[in-house]
Amino acid sequence: MPTLHPEIRRLLTSGALVHLVTVNPDGSPQVSCVWVGLDGEEIISAHMLRRQKVRNVESDPRVVLSVEAEGSNELGLRNYLTIQGRARVQHGGAAELLQQLAHVYLGPDVVFPPPGHDRPGYVIRITPDRVGGVGPWISTES
Amino acid sequence: MPTLHPEIRRLLTSGALVHLVTVNPDGSPQVSCVWVGLDGEEIISAHMLRRQKVRNVESDPRVVLSVEAEGSNELGLRNYLTIQGRARVQHGGAAELLQQLAHVYLGPDVVFPPPGHDRPGYVIRITPDRVGGVGPWISTES
Repeated sequence: MPTLHPEIRRLLTSGALVHLVTVNPDGSPQVSCVWVGLDGEEIISAHMLRRQKVRNVESDPRVVLSVEAEGSNELGLRNYLTIQGRARVQHGGAAELLQQLAHVYLGPDVVFPPPGHDRPGYVIRITPDRVGGVGPWISTES
Repeated sequence: MPTLHPEIRRLLTSGALVHLVTVNPDGSPQVSCVWVGLDGEEIISAHMLRRQKVRNVESDPRVVLSVEAEGSNELGLRNYLTIQGRARVQHGGAAELLQQLAHVYLGPDVVFPPPGHDRPGYVIRITPDRVGGVGPWISTES
């Protein structure tokens, strides 16, 4: 897909919670809310432990995420962004990324993870394939 | 599962946007934001057209939903609710349910769907199986 719409980049770096969906081994969907950042055209999230979503991405790269946005359309339906993509797991780098994202999501002075709780962890890196939802990114992207 | 936690019932009738995840025919996850209501212990949403999520539920009943909530935990992570469940599609009843939900989501005087746009449509009915996320519903439910 083309480079991410500027409004998408703004939303994904605004501190909005991201609902990240992965596929469980039995094919059912799994969702949890995560912090994200951008690294070029990749959407990145950090995870201290090898929990279900990390294991899911390792066995099936297909993910989708959704994010609530400001504003609404002409019917009054609230804006939101969806992105379908392919994800991969990078080992290490979680503590550094969490600290960076904590400044966006919690505040400029927050130390996170709490001292003594940092470990290498995992970074999930998502390559966007398709954009959807309701919002200014739809007119030019779909 | 036991009856829905009172805080879950409150959240699901508060006008909070619900991120509804279904499974595409190829096994990839699909997400869109919907309005919901409660009918006893079922979570219900209304759809005028037989779009992808309706067709997905018809072929695979496994869904998961997530909802952002007020408050945060001791680490500062924002509260959110997830519910895994099984869904089924009921034919008809969409316009009436949308009108009822529009009073919650848009305002007490809103007419929705707009005149001339109503049709029987579809109602998705979700039976909750498992609750997760971050919030007061976790202590007693997980």
